[in-house]
Amino acid sequence: MSSLVVSHDPRTGSVAGTVDATDVADVGRPVGRAQIAAAVTAAASPVERRRWLYAVAGALEDRVEEIVEIADRETGLGVERLTGEVGRTADQLRFYADVAVEGSYLEATIDTDDAGGARLAKVSHPLGPVAVFGASNFPLAFSVLGNDTASALAAGCPVIAKAHDAHVTLSVFLAEIARSALESAGAPQGTLDLVVGFDAGVALVRHAGVAAVGFTGSQAGGLALWRLANERAIAIPVYAEMGTVNPIVVTPTAACDADAIASGFVGSFTLGAGQYCTKPGLLFAPREASMPIRVASALRAAEAEPVMLTERIAALLKAGVEELQAAGAALVYATPARQAGWAGTAAVLTVPITAVTAGSRLLEECFGPVVLVVPYDDLEEVVAAVDELQGCLAASVFAAGPDDPDAAAFVRRLAATAGRVCLNEWTTGVGCSWAQHHGGPWPATTQPATTSVGAAALRRWVRPVAYQAVPDPWLPEPLQAANPWMISRRVNGVIEPAATHV
Amino acid sequence: MSSLVVSHDPRTGSVAGTVDATDVADVGRPVGRAQIAAAVTAAASPVERRRWLYAVAGALEDRVEEIVEIADRETGLGVERLTGEVGRTADQLRFYADVAVEGSYLEATIDTDDAGGARLAKVSHPLGPVAVFGASNFPLAFSVLGNDTASALAAGCPVIAKAHDAHVTLSVFLAEIARSALESAGAPQGTLDLVVGFDAGVALVRHAGVAAVGFTGSQAGGLALWRLANERAIAIPVYAEMGTVNPIVVTPTAACDADAIASGFVGSFTLGAGQYCTKPGLLFAPREASMPIRVASALRAAEAEPVMLTERIAALLKAGVEELQAAGAALVYATPARQAGWAGTAAVLTVPITAVTAGSRLLEECFGPVVLVVPYDDLEEVVAAVDELQGCLAASVFAAGPDDPDAAAFVRRLAATAGRVCLNEWTTGVGCSWAQHHGGPWPATTQPATTSVGAAALRRWVRPVAYQAVPDPWLPEPLQAANPWMISRRVNGVIEPAATHV
Repeated sequence: MSSLVVSHDPRTGSVAGTVDATDVADVGRPVGRAQIAAAVTAAASPVERRRWLYAVAGALEDRVEEIVEIADRETGLGVERLTGEVGRTADQLRFYADVAVEGSYLEATIDTDDAGGARLAKVSHPLGPVAVFGASNFPLAFSVLGNDTASALAAGCPVIAKAHDAHVTLSVFLAEIARSALESAGAPQGTLDLVVGFDAGVALVRHAGVAAVGFTGSQAGGLALWRLANERAIAIPVYAEMGTVNPIVVTPTAACDADAIASGFVGSFTLGAGQYCTKPGLLFAPREASMPIRVASALRAAEAEPVMLTERIAALLKAGVEELQAAGAALVYATPARQAGWAGTAAVLTVPITAVTAGSRLLEECFGPVVLVVPYDDLEEVVAAVDELQGCLAASVFAAGPDDPDAAAFVRRLAATAGRVCLNEWTTGVGCSWAQHHGGPWPATTQPATTSVGAAALRRWVRPVAYQAVPDPWLPEPLQAANPWMISRRVNGVIEPAATHV
Repeated sequence: MSSLVVSHDPRTGSVAGTVDATDVADVGRPVGRAQIAAAVTAAASPVERRRWLYAVAGALEDRVEEIVEIADRETGLGVERLTGEVGRTADQLRFYADVAVEGSYLEATIDTDDAGGARLAKVSHPLGPVAVFGASNFPLAFSVLGNDTASALAAGCPVIAKAHDAHVTLSVFLAEIARSALESAGAPQGTLDLVVGFDAGVALVRHAGVAAVGFTGSQAGGLALWRLANERAIAIPVYAEMGTVNPIVVTPTAACDADAIASGFVGSFTLGAGQYCTKPGLLFAPREASMPIRVASALRAAEAEPVMLTERIAALLKAGVEELQAAGAALVYATPARQAGWAGTAAVLTVPITAVTAGSRLLEECFGPVVLVVPYDDLEEVVAAVDELQGCLAASVFAAGPDDPDAAAFVRRLAATAGRVCLNEWTTGVGCSWAQHHGGPWPATTQPATTSVGAAALRRWVRPVAYQAVPDPWLPEPLQAANPWMISRRVNGVIEPAATHV
C-alpha cells in the first residue's frame, strides 16, 4: 500500500501531478545500487565523469520545452524564468565537470623522499552515495539536477535525490532524463536515482549506505535533517544551505539615490515572489530618505501579484506578516491578494531600529515578498543593529561612490555576518563560478566553511587519504609520478598547475 | 570558593602539581579578551603572525630544560621523548606560520570583470576565538601549544586552551611562556589564554564568544564536546580527532618476515606505553606465520614496563583487557605489572577472524599497549573483516615487495576506512608536512574531511566570504589587485603561485 505525493498548480490550486511515494522498505534498493556504482564513479577519471555530466546537460537542453511545461505547471514560475533556469542548470553541470577535470579539489599533495618518489602523498576520495534534498524555489538549479547533484557527481559520488513534493512530477521527469543520458554516456547503473515522499527521505538520511547529505531550503527542514544525521551510529555530514534574512545598508550619502534604490529593492524582493534564499529582507536607510514610503510607492507601482509555490508557503507568508506585526513592525503597504490558487501578498513593514535585537522574530526569515525597512538617525545605530543580526547568506551596501566615507566600514562589518557582501547590487542572483561562495555563518549553513554554489562545492563530497611509503604503481592515479589525470598538484609545498586537457 | 586540579607523577602516584580551577563565572574574561584580540589577529598579515609564532617557538626552545622537567614529572614520558617533543612542537609552530604566509589556505579567488577588476572575489576570514582541548599523551605537540593552537593562531584566530588535568602545571607554564613571547613580538593581549578545570572547559564550549573547538583525545571526550556544541543556539564546528583501532594487514608473502614484523609491531604498540591514537591495535596475519606467539615472544623480550599517564587510563586499560576477553579474545601474553604509580600491563590477545564483526567491543579502542592478533586462512576472510572495521586514523599493509600480488588491493581497501595508509611502516608517528592527513572517517574525526596535522589544518579555522562588485580599495588585502600579502591566488580559474617572501 503506497501513498501518493500530489503537486498543484499554484495559480489555480488544482492538481498538477501525482506520483507514488517510495516505500520506506524499498529505499535500500537505490542506495544499494549507488553503493555498487560508487566504486566505478570513484575510479572513473574526471575526464570520464565530465563526459557523463556534459551528456546530462545536453539532454536537459534537448528537452527544454517539455521540462519547462511540467515545471511551470507545478511551480507557476513562468516560462521565461524556467527556460533560463534550464540553461543555467545545464551550465552548472558543465562547470562542475570542468572543475573536476582541473583537479584542484582533489588537493593532491606530494612530499617526496630523497629519491624523488612520494614519501607521503595525499589525495581526496569521494565519500560515496550522497542524498540530495532540493529546494521548492529552484526546481531545476537547486533540485534533482542542481548544484548539489552536479557537484557530487563531478566529485565521483553517486546521488540519490529526494523528489521535491512541490514539483514531484518534474523531479521524476528530470531523473529519467538524467538516468538515460548517464547510461548512454557509459556511467554505471545507480549513478543517479530518486526516492519520493517524506518518509523515504527520512529513511534515506538514516540509511547506513548514505555517506553525506546536501540540502537547500528552510531552516526548519535543514536543521531537522542535520539532527537526524547526527543521531546515526555513524554520523554523516549534512551540508544544509538555509534561507536567511539578508540585510541591506544604505549609507547617508547614497540616500540621494533613494528612488532608484527603492525601485531596485522592490525588483529584487518581488523576484520569483520573493521566494529566494538571498532575498533582501531588511533594509537600513537614513530616516530623511523616507524609505518606507518610497519602497511602498515603488511596490504599488510594480503591481506585483505574487503567487507562492505551495499552499503551505502561502499560509506561512500570511502568518509571517502577522508575526512581524506582533513583534513590533508596522505595515506600510501590502498588495491586494488575488483570490485564486496560492496567491500571496507583497508587503513593506517598518520598525524602529531599537527593535532590531538578537532573538527577535523580526530577524528571522519570512519567506516571500515581505521586507522590513528600518530608518536610522546615525551610523552608530546601524553598526549596533548589524551586530544583532543572525548569520546570513548575503548582504549589500549601497554607497554613493568611491568617496563614500562609510561604505568600506559596512562592507567589513557585514562580512562578519554574511557569506557574500555586495556593493550597489542586490543580493538575489548567485552565479556559479570559481569565486562564488553561497553559504555563511550559522544558521545560513550547518557547515559555515562550505559553499553550495561555485567551484568549492565539490569539496563537500570528498575526504583526504594520505599514503605513506606506498610505491608509485599502488598509489591512486592522481598521485602517481606520471600524473595520468593531468591535475593540479602540490609537490614539496609548491603548486604545479594542471596541464591543459585536450 | 575555587576547586583545585591536581596532577600526579605516574611513576609514583604522588602529587606533581596543583592549580586553582577557573571559576565558571570567570570564563567570560579570557573569551572577552580573545574577542577583542580577534579583530587585530585577523587584520594582521600572515607575515606578522609568523613573527608571533616564531617567537613562541623560540621561547619554547629557550626553556626546553624547565619544560621537560615539569612535563616529565606530570607525564612520566621521559626526558628523551619530551625533549624531542619540545623540538617538534616548535617546528610545528613555525610550519603553520609558513603555511599561512604561503597563503593558499585563504583560497583567494578572483573572477574579473571586463575591465580586469574583481567582479566577484572570495577569501577566507578567521572564525574568531577557538577553544582548544589538548591530549594527555602529547603534552606538548597536541596540547596548549600543539597542532590545534598553532594552526588556529597561524590562521588568525585567538586561542583559549583548556589546561589538561593530567599536565595542568605544564599547561600553565606553557601558556605563560607563550603569552610572554606573543606580547614581546607585538601580538595583542588575549591572543592566547588558558582556563583550568572541567567545568570551565564546558563553559568555554558553551560561550557565545567561542567560534570553534579543537579537540584531541578519546571518543567519549570528543563526542561529548561535539554534542555540547551542537546544542548551542548557534552551533559551532568541533574538530575532534579521536583515538581508533588502527588495523595492520600482513600479506601471505610478507609473512616470511614474520619475526621482523613481530618485533616492529611490539616496538610500535609499546611506544609511549601504547598511548598513541595511531597505535596499531589489530593485526591480521596468515595463520602459518604463528603471529600470536611471535608477537608474545617479542613483547616478552622487550621487557616493557608500561606506566600509564593517569590513574584513570591505567584503570581503563585493565578493564579494557578484561572486556576484550569477555568479547571472545584469548590472552596470549601479558607483561607483569609493576606495583608503583599508574603501572599498566602490555598484552597480546588473539581472536578468530569470525569474531571480527561490526559493533563488537573487539573493534573499539583499548588505549594502551594492548593488541589483538587475528590469524587468517585465506584473503577473502581478511577482505570481509576489514569491511567490518570502524573508521580509523591510520592503517598499514606489510607486503613482500613490489611484486606482492595482494598488497595493492589492501592499500585500496584500507583507504576506504582510514585517513592514512602506510606500506611496510608502522602507523605511529605523524609528521607535520604539506601532504599529511591526520583524520579519517567517523569516529576517527567528527568532520572526516579535516585534518588536525599538516598544512590543511589551518582551513578548519576560517570561512570564505565572497565580495561582489566591491571596489579594490575596499576589498580585504588578499584580494586587492596589488596582492599586498603576496599570497597564492586563483584568477579566472587559473592558479597564480605565491611570490617569494624575503
